Amino acid sequence: MATVKMMTDREAEGIPAVKTVFDDIRATRKSDFINNFWRALAHDPAQLSRIWTQVKTIMGTPGALDPLTRELIYIAVSTANGCSYCIHSHTAAARAKGMTDAQHRELVSIIGLAGQTNHLVTALQVPVDPEFDVR
Amino acid sequence: MATVKMMTDREAEGIPAVKTVFDDIRATRKSDFINNFWRALAHDPAQLSRIWTQVKTIMGTPGALDPLTRELIYIAVSTANGCSYCIHSHTAAARAKGMTDAQHRELVSIIGLAGQTNHLVTALQVPVDPEFDVR
Amino acid sequence: MATVKMMTDREAEGIPAVKTVFDDIRATRKSDFINNFWRALAHDPAQLSRIWTQVKTIMGTPGALDPLTRELIYIAVSTANGCSYCIHSHTAAARAKGMTDAQHRELVSIIGLAGQTNHLVTALQVPVDPEFDVR
Amino acid sequence: MATVKMMTDREAEGIPAVKTVFDDIRATRKSDFINNFWRALAHDPAQLSRIWTQVKTIMGTPGALDPLTRELIYIAVSTANGCSYCIHSHTAAARAKGMTDAQHRELVSIIGLAGQTNHLVTALQVPVDPEFDVR
Amino acid sequence: MATVKMMTDREAEGIPAVKTVFDDIRATRKSDFINNFWRALAHDPAQLSRIWTQVKTIMGTPGALDPLTRELIYIAVSTANGCSYCIHSHTAAARAKGMTDAQHRELVSIIGLAGQTNHLVTALQVPVDPEFDVR
Amino acid sequence: MATVKMMTDREAEGIPAVKTVFDDIRATRKSDFINNFWRALAHDPAQLSRIWTQVKTIMGTPGALDPLTRELIYIAVSTANGCSYCIHSHTAAARAKGMTDAQHRELVSIIGLAGQTNHLVTALQVPVDPEFDVR
Repeated sequence: MATVKMMTDREAEGIPAVKTVFDDIRATRKSDFINNFWRALAHDPAQLSRIWTQVKTIMGTPGALDPLTRELIYIAVSTANGCSYCIHSHTAAARAKGMTDAQHRELVSIIGLAGQTNHLVTALQVPVDPEFDVR
Repeated sequence: MATVKMMTDREAEGIPAVKTVFDDIRATRKSDFINNFWRALAHDPAQLSRIWTQVKTIMGTPGALDPLTRELIYIAVSTANGCSYCIHSHTAAARAKGMTDAQHRELVSIIGLAGQTNHLVTALQVPVDPEFDVR
Repeated sequence: MATVKMMTDREAEGIPAVKTVFDDIRATRKSDFINNFWRALAHDPAQLSRIWTQVKTIMGTPGALDPLTRELIYIAVSTANGCSYCIHSHTAAARAKGMTDAQHRELVSIIGLAGQTNHLVTALQVPVDPEFDVR
Repeated sequence: MATVKMMTDREAEGIPAVKTVFDDIRATRKSDFINNFWRALAHDPAQLSRIWTQVKTIMGTPGALDPLTRELIYIAVSTANGCSYCIHSHTAAARAKGMTDAQHRELVSIIGLAGQTNHLVTALQVPVDPEFDVR
Repeated sequence: MATVKMMTDREAEGIPAVKTVFDDIRATRKSDFINNFWRALAHDPAQLSRIWTQVKTIMGTPGALDPLTRELIYIAVSTANGCSYCIHSHTAAARAKGMTDAQHRELVSIIGLAGQTNHLVTALQVPVDPEFDVR
Repeated sequence: MATVKMMTDREAEGIPAVKTVFDDIRATRKSDFINNFWRALAHDPAQLSRIWTQVKTIMGTPGALDPLTRELIYIAVSTANGCSYCIHSHTAAARAKGMTDAQHRELVSIIGLAGQTNHLVTALQVPVDPEFDVR
């Protein structure tokens, strides 16, 4: 149950600004599947375009981090934020980009450990060591 | 300003269970520096030992993810949880393990993007696509 | 699946302190519908009354912000806190108070943007400018 | 203490992509003041430009919500996310856009109330009423 | 650095609604000390009164949980929410109500463990067992 | 819908490291029921063992806090973190350890109140009183 309706392909066909993005998602991912995130965003074509452009640039442009590492970081943030949909979609994306079960296990362990030490640090209000300052 | 006092080396010398962990941190990291997190935990020697053992195992055992990737995941969780100390300490740790400025920039971009899409998904309450189910 | 049972109208009839609040909710909202939040709270009649009084005062008293703006702020907080029920109930309330689709789209964009810049600021640990101090 | 250095005007002068954005911030806001958020982002000129373009579009384009309401929403999200810098900068921005003390008081009350009911709903795991579904 | 000014005793003297609450805080706590939380709230006397009444009722009325347990729960929520001020004030309150160092150590351990398992459950999206349902 | 499959008893039988933990959970809890959290963790036997050992130690070792108080703290953290599964499992555990309806009502009230004051403090950015410092 969502707060907006998921846009169907039929509706998307009638809105050029949406159709353009949907077509680019399909072409970029070489798959006909458009997941619900984009169908929910589609009711705001300008926003749909802004978000897709960012995702394509930040997650897709070759750079200093490989595509799988980027997905692992995405899962980590989404877990700490408790975004169920995002955890599902990016865990699926990570698997599609080659994440092994062993990598998933390590990712989950690190997320859990960080969750624990984050809470310990906060409960104890540990002051930042001056050694960590960027010179 | 913390909710416990940071344990000094002098105090740690007098508590064998703490001294053992502090010595192991120094030996493992090949550095004399013990950061405040461990000094705050030291008032509970059993907990200090439990946490250090986990950190050493989860962050230090060779496995499917390299040491730098593990730090990037740690920073991602700590940022989403708003743990200032943890962000500082793990950003410093990542730099010590070779994180370049370009990698830091990409990490920060991905964290920001995930923050945005997490919020959009939650505001729109997007339902999980059945395609994301683990078989 | 809840951690308490939703109180039925029949049960509420038998508890004067609950009946009084349910009656006031119906009279205030000019509707027979009592949503699950109040039915869950009803097991603690004192708390039910405390929360309803606050909601009526803070959301209903004419003041410096109009009723719709108050709902938009409520949705914003609920989204950042990941409270699915609250997002649904206050998005419905906002629509009932006249929120247009265009206003909803802008609200969602701002929530997403704030989510992104909140994460960027936290990852970079940007220090507060002295210019922002209240004189 | 930040995880990157704040870029000075002198440094910004030497990087055309940064200078362009800083100049546009100054022109748009009709003020010489560039706050630390932009100085921290400036180490990634592409990201600086992306974020500024979004802020300018989402916060500045005339639309269905007035500029002050947009700032109130921003403060609400930033508070729930615990982003201290963001609360300071957007509270200052809201005041600059005319937020009165009475409006600030009501905003703060609503944020507090939403914080309370969000926690109550979550502790009780209240199920979403079918009446809230978008038809 | 706050977004409002802390109200001084001198200013409070001039506003009867504030003076009444400040006097009651002092009488209830048998202490002359008024901490900053109340001085920040005092700019909204109605809200100040509402919050103080709730705190006095929920934290101070004899009931099913003893006063120290109530403070431990408060610290737990405040830590998970990352509210630095609240952690400091309620850790001080718990100590004033008799919290021993051993109790503080156990509290902190449980908070850390819950932080870890909360993150693990979320990353793995563990489905709720039907056995947990309230019959 | 989870991101891993729940391990069945049949599968667990074939993995000695998992069987050992499952047997110990059953013996410790004097119940044949193994909830989904452990079945999800079981795909990483080392992690399963690490987490179970911690839970057994931190939640089960007699100490300065009684078993029910520990569960209340766990529920408080899990609520603030929005971990639905954890709220359900620990509310059930608290009931099994004797939590009365009156205790549950007070717990929920305190969690709600803390949620509210945490948000107020954060919105107002209240500075920590020097009186709260640990001497």
